[in-house]
Amino acid sequence: MNKQKRIEEYGIHIGKLPRGPLNKITDVAGVRVGHCTVRDDRHNTGVTVILPSEDNIFTNKLIAASYVHNGFGKTTGTVQIEELGTLETPIALTNTLNVGIVSDAVVEYMTELCAKDGVALRSVNPVVGECNDASLNAITDRAVRKEHVFEAIRSAGPEFEEGDIGAGTGTTCYGFKGGIGSASRTVELDGKTYTLGILVQSNYGSTADLTVCGKPLGEEILQKLREEECDRGSIMVILACDVPLTARQLKRIVRRCSVGIARLGSYIGHGSGEVFIGFSTANVIRSGDGDILSLSCIREEKIDRFFRAAGEATEEAILNSMICADEVRMPDGRAVHSLKEFL
Amino acid sequence: MNKQKRIEEYGIHIGKLPRGPLNKITDVAGVRVGHCTVRDDRHNTGVTVILPSEDNIFTNKLIAASYVHNGFGKTTGTVQIEELGTLETPIALTNTLNVGIVSDAVVEYMTELCAKDGVALRSVNPVVGECNDASLNAITDRAVRKEHVFEAIRSAGPEFEEGDIGAGTGTTCYGFKGGIGSASRTVELDGKTYTLGILVQSNYGSTADLTVCGKPLGEEILQKLREEECDRGSIMVILACDVPLTARQLKRIVRRCSVGIARLGSYIGHGSGEVFIGFSTANVIRSGDGDILSLSCIREEKIDRFFRAAGEATEEAILNSMICADEVRMPDGRAVHSLKEFL
Amino acid sequence: MNKQKRIEEYGIHIGKLPRGPLNKITDVAGVRVGHCTVRDDRHNTGVTVILPSEDNIFTNKLIAASYVHNGFGKTTGTVQIEELGTLETPIALTNTLNVGIVSDAVVEYMTELCAKDGVALRSVNPVVGECNDASLNAITDRAVRKEHVFEAIRSAGPEFEEGDIGAGTGTTCYGFKGGIGSASRTVELDGKTYTLGILVQSNYGSTADLTVCGKPLGEEILQKLREEECDRGSIMVILACDVPLTARQLKRIVRRCSVGIARLGSYIGHGSGEVFIGFSTANVIRSGDGDILSLSCIREEKIDRFFRAAGEATEEAILNSMICADEVRMPDGRAVHSLKEFL
Amino acid sequence: MNKQKRIEEYGIHIGKLPRGPLNKITDVAGVRVGHCTVRDDRHNTGVTVILPSEDNIFTNKLIAASYVHNGFGKTTGTVQIEELGTLETPIALTNTLNVGIVSDAVVEYMTELCAKDGVALRSVNPVVGECNDASLNAITDRAVRKEHVFEAIRSAGPEFEEGDIGAGTGTTCYGFKGGIGSASRTVELDGKTYTLGILVQSNYGSTADLTVCGKPLGEEILQKLREEECDRGSIMVILACDVPLTARQLKRIVRRCSVGIARLGSYIGHGSGEVFIGFSTANVIRSGDGDILSLSCIREEKIDRFFRAAGEATEEAILNSMICADEVRMPDGRAVHSLKEFL
Repeated sequence: MNKQKRIEEYGIHIGKLPRGPLNKITDVAGVRVGHCTVRDDRHNTGVTVILPSEDNIFTNKLIAASYVHNGFGKTTGTVQIEELGTLETPIALTNTLNVGIVSDAVVEYMTELCAKDGVALRSVNPVVGECNDASLNAITDRAVRKEHVFEAIRSAGPEFEEGDIGAGTGTTCYGFKGGIGSASRTVELDGKTYTLGILVQSNYGSTADLTVCGKPLGEEILQKLREEECDRGSIMVILACDVPLTARQLKRIVRRCSVGIARLGSYIGHGSGEVFIGFSTANVIRSGDGDILSLSCIREEKIDRFFRAAGEATEEAILNSMICADEVRMPDGRAVHSLKEFL
Repeated sequence: MNKQKRIEEYGIHIGKLPRGPLNKITDVAGVRVGHCTVRDDRHNTGVTVILPSEDNIFTNKLIAASYVHNGFGKTTGTVQIEELGTLETPIALTNTLNVGIVSDAVVEYMTELCAKDGVALRSVNPVVGECNDASLNAITDRAVRKEHVFEAIRSAGPEFEEGDIGAGTGTTCYGFKGGIGSASRTVELDGKTYTLGILVQSNYGSTADLTVCGKPLGEEILQKLREEECDRGSIMVILACDVPLTARQLKRIVRRCSVGIARLGSYIGHGSGEVFIGFSTANVIRSGDGDILSLSCIREEKIDRFFRAAGEATEEAILNSMICADEVRMPDGRAVHSLKEFL
Repeated sequence: MNKQKRIEEYGIHIGKLPRGPLNKITDVAGVRVGHCTVRDDRHNTGVTVILPSEDNIFTNKLIAASYVHNGFGKTTGTVQIEELGTLETPIALTNTLNVGIVSDAVVEYMTELCAKDGVALRSVNPVVGECNDASLNAITDRAVRKEHVFEAIRSAGPEFEEGDIGAGTGTTCYGFKGGIGSASRTVELDGKTYTLGILVQSNYGSTADLTVCGKPLGEEILQKLREEECDRGSIMVILACDVPLTARQLKRIVRRCSVGIARLGSYIGHGSGEVFIGFSTANVIRSGDGDILSLSCIREEKIDRFFRAAGEATEEAILNSMICADEVRMPDGRAVHSLKEFL
Repeated sequence: MNKQKRIEEYGIHIGKLPRGPLNKITDVAGVRVGHCTVRDDRHNTGVTVILPSEDNIFTNKLIAASYVHNGFGKTTGTVQIEELGTLETPIALTNTLNVGIVSDAVVEYMTELCAKDGVALRSVNPVVGECNDASLNAITDRAVRKEHVFEAIRSAGPEFEEGDIGAGTGTTCYGFKGGIGSASRTVELDGKTYTLGILVQSNYGSTADLTVCGKPLGEEILQKLREEECDRGSIMVILACDVPLTARQLKRIVRRCSVGIARLGSYIGHGSGEVFIGFSTANVIRSGDGDILSLSCIREEKIDRFFRAAGEATEEAILNSMICADEVRMPDGRAVHSLKEFL
C-alpha cells in the first residue's frame, strides 16, 4: 500500500477539531476497512466493507442509527436499525444493482461466522449501501460476486486505501473521479478523548457547484473544461465512534453529516441517494441472563462537539475520496478527471 | 369522591395481565392526576393534568416518547419529545381550541415552580393534548382559563374520578358519553414488579363499530336507538410506567396503545386525532457536572409483556372512560347516552 | 388449481363492506399474483410475486406508500418508496435470508424487461418482503434461487392459491400453519365502484392470543393442545387499489392494515416484523415531455371508507392464509396444525 | 417604511438563480407579511405573521409541508400538516414562551374570519413558530398579547421591513443581532416562471462559525471583539411558492432549506430548534361536492431547481435578517452588534 497524498497535504484544512492518528474511520479502536476492486474492460466497480469490531458483531451488537437525507437509494438494513437501534453485521458498500448479491454474501459470511462460534443464526439484518457507478461500469452485469465480498472482508484492517478503489472504483463526484474517502476527529469529555471517524463512498454533485473552503473551485475549473455533470448519483456516509450514546443521540449526530456535504456546494440533488449510517463501539449488547441492562450515554448538552466532528470529518472525507482518486476513462473515451489535476 | 363503578364490575375483563392496586395510571409511584371541570349552560369542557413525578420535572426530566397514530390533531410538545426523548412539564389535556391558553398556563406554572426552586427558566416545552368537544361545548369560547389549569394541578392526587369530568366533560366516544378513563397492568422482570398505567381522554368512534370483548355491542344498541355518530373526534392516550427504558424502547411500547383502540372496533377514522404520549419514572435526568450518564433499560427481548400491557390497559381505560360517564344533553336536547344504560 | 375453502365458507364474516368478485387482491384490475414453492426434506419455503400492472412498471410507475408497523424485518425497497412515492418493480415475498437473492432476481427481470422495451435501465428499486420460516425450513440454505422467482412471475395471473404455497410454504401464524391469504373490498365514490385488495404473508402471533370475530379461539384450542408458540415471526401486507390517491393519502390507508392484525388478537410482538406496502393503479407516472403532471386524488373527507376496507380485508386475508393451509410436520416430527382442523 | 440596505447591496451575491422583483417571500402572489414589535425597557420581542393568500385560508386550504431539522423547539401545528398536507391558518412567529398566547390569538382571528364568511369553525390548526429571545427580552413575561397578533395581521402587506422587528426584535444570530429576513428566487418550467420565497426568523449560530460566501468572517471579527456566543437559539424558515406540488414534493423542497444554513457555517447546534414550514399557492383545496379532486404537480425530475432555490434563498434571507438589524444593548449594557458594522 503506497502512501496516498491527502487533501490536507494540499494545504486545505477542514474545520477546527483535532484529528486522530490516521485521520481515518479506523482511528476508532476495533474498526477495520477492506476493499475488493472489480476492474476490467467492461467494469469499474467493487465492494468496500467496514467491520465495526473485532468480536462477532451478531452476538455483540453495537448501538446504531441511520438517517436518510435523500431516499432515492437502495440501501438495505436501515428499517431494522431504526426500530432496534443496533447493528449486527459488517456494513458493505457496492454499486446500486449489486445490493442483492452483496447482501446475500453478508448473510453467508455471518452464518458461517456464527456457526464457528456455535451460534445457530436464523435471522440477520445485512446492511448494504450503494452508489450508482453506471457511467463507468456495465452496472446491469452485477459484476461484484460473493467471492469479492469475502475477499474484501479478509483484507480488512486499520490501514486502507482511498480514492478509486473497492466500492469507489466507478463513482464520480462533482464531475470528477470520486470514490472512498475517510477522516476522523477527536473530542474531549470529562478528561477522556473520544474518536469519531467517517468513511464515504462519494458519487454526487455538479462540477459547477463544487466549493472548497468557500472557494467556488468548480466554476473556475469549468472555464477550462467546458463540460458539466448534473447532480445525480449518491453518497453513502458511514460514521463510527467510541463515545457512549443512545441510538437517539447517535441519530442526531449522524444527521449532521449533511453539513459537510452542503459545505462542498451540493443542494442535495433529487437523484442523489444520501444515506448515513452510524454506530458506536461504546455499549455492547450481549446476550445474557439479566433482564435489565446498564447503558452509558453523554449528557445531551455535550453533544454539540460531536455534531461539529461529524460535519467536519464528512467534508474532509469527501475531499479525500476525490483527491486520492486517479483519472479514469469512460467507455466512450471521455476522461473523468481527478481533482488533483486542478489543485 | 364517590367510588365509581368501573367496567370490571360489570363482569367485563380485558386482557390477561394483573392490575395495580388502583387499576389507574396513578399506580405508577409519584404520578398524580387532577381535574377542573367547566360546566354551565353553554359549556361542557375542562382540563385534566397528569403530574409525572413529585419532583420539579423541569430540573428532573423523565424519559419520554410520543407516537402520532393519526395526526389530525393539535397536541403541542411532541416535536421536542421526539428530538430529546424527555418530558419537562406536566401533561395537560383540554378541548381543541383551548390548547393555546392551557399551554400558556403550563408555562406560567413551570416558571413559578422553577422560580421557587431558584432556577431561572428561559425555555420550556409545554405538553398539551386535546379532543374536540364541540358537540357539547361552545368550543370557540375557549372557556378553559389559566385558573382552571392551576386548580387542576392543585387538586391532583393519586385518587381521581373518571368519566365526564375535567378534559372529558364534553367528549363522546362511539356515540356514547366518553371522557377520562384509566387502567393499569403489572409486569415481572428479574423478580421485580413494574407498573404501566394508562389514562385516556376518549372522543372517537362510530356507534355501529363498538365491539366489547369481541361482541358487536354497538350494532345491538343501534337497533334500539336508530341514531349514529360517524367516526370523528380524537383520542389522547397518556402512558406512565416505572420500568427503565430508553426513549426508543418507550416509543415502541407507546405505539402499541393502538391495539387497544382497534380491539374496541375503531378503524382509526380520518377525523380522529390519535396521539399517544408516554413517560417512564425510572431514569431521571438531572443537571450535574459529569459528562457521561448512566441509564438502565430492559433487554429488548423482554419488551413484549409491556406491549401487551399497553394494549390491554388502553382498551380497559377507554371502557372505563365511557362506563363512568353519565348521560348528557346536547344544546338541541338530544341525549348523549351513557354506556352504562346498556350493560 | 382446486378451489380452496375459505374462511367465509366456514360461516365467519369479517366486516361490513362488500367484496370484489374473487375476494382477492387480483380484483384490482391488472394485478396478478404468482407463486413458486420450494419443498423438499430440508425445505418448506418459496417466493410469491405481486405484479401490479400489465404494463412495464418501470416506465409506467404507480403511486406507492409503505408503513413500517414494527421494523424488526429485512424488507428492502421502502426507503425509496417513502422518498419518491412510486413503485417501479413487482413486489416479491420470500423467506428472511433469501431477500438478497430474490432482490437480485427482480433486478435481472426488470433489466431484461426494459431491454426488450428498448429502455436502458441503470437503476431500479426492487421491493422484496420477507417472513422468517426457520422453524419449517433450513433457512440458512437460501433455497429460493433466481429461477424460482422467474417461475413465480411466469405463473402469475388473476387466479392464485392461498395457504401453504409460495412465500407462505413455511410460515406459521398464531402457532398454526400460516401462509399466503387474500381478500378484497369495494367502495363507492361519486357513483363509481373502487376496489381495494390485500395479500398477506402471515407468520406471527401466539396461539393463546388468537381471537376470531371476538371469540378467544386460541385459548380454547390450547386446552386441547397444550403447546404454545410465542409471538415472533412477521407479517407482510400488500395492498392494491384502483382509487386515485396521493402517496400521502395512500400511506394513511396502508397504516390502517394494522387494525386487522390487532382484531385477531396480536399485540404486535417485538420479534414480528410488520411491514405494509401499498400501491394504486389509478395514476400512472410515465416519462414524457411536460414538466407539469395532472393527478387525481380523493377528497380527504372520503378516506374513511378506505380505512375500513384496509382493516377488514387484512383481517380476512390473514384468516384465509391460515384456513387454506394444510398441516405440516416440523423436522422433529411435531405437527404445525391447520386452523381448519379446529373450526 | 425606509428602504433598508440589504446584503446584495454590500456586494455579496448568494447563489445563481434569478430573484423576484422584491427579493422577498411576498414575490409569491397573494402572500403578505406583517409585524408587531414589543419594545420597552424589559422587552425586545414581537410577532410576525405570514398570510399565505388573500382568501379565507380555512375554506381555501393550501398544500403544505414541514420539516424538523432539529426538534429542540416549541413550534405548534406541524403534526397536522404532516398528516393532512394542508395549511388552514396564517403562520405566526414569536418568542418561545409566547407560543400559547399567540396560538390562541390565531384561533380567535380564524373564528371571527370564518364567522364573517358564514362558516361555523369548530376545529382549526394554528401554526406558530418561535425563537428564544431571552438574552434581550424578559421572556417569562410573555409580553406579546393577543392585540399584538391582530395588529400584525392588520398591517400585513407585500412590503415589509427586515431585521430587528416583529418576531425578530430580540433574536441574535451568530452572536450578532438577528431578526427577520427574506429573499426569493424564480425558476422556469415549460416556459412559465415560478417563484419561491423564504422568510426566516434567525436566532442561532456561534460567531466563530460565521462564514459568508466561503469567507470565515466570524473568526476575523472575533479577533477584534474577543467575545463569543455559543450555538443556541433557533431558526424558523417559512417557504412560500406558487409551483404546483404534492405535499411530499413540497417536503423534499422544504428540507433543502438546511443547505442555506450549513453554508453560513452552522453545525446545527443541539440547542437550536430548526423548523421549516412551506406552502404552495398553486393547488387550492376548497370544500365542494365532488369526491375526486384534480391536482397538478411537477415532474419529479424537475425538482432540482427548486431544491437550489430553497437553499439559496434561505442563505440570503438569513444574511438579510442580520444586515438589516441595528445594534441592540442587553440589560447588562453589553452590545449585540449589527453585522453591518463589520462589512
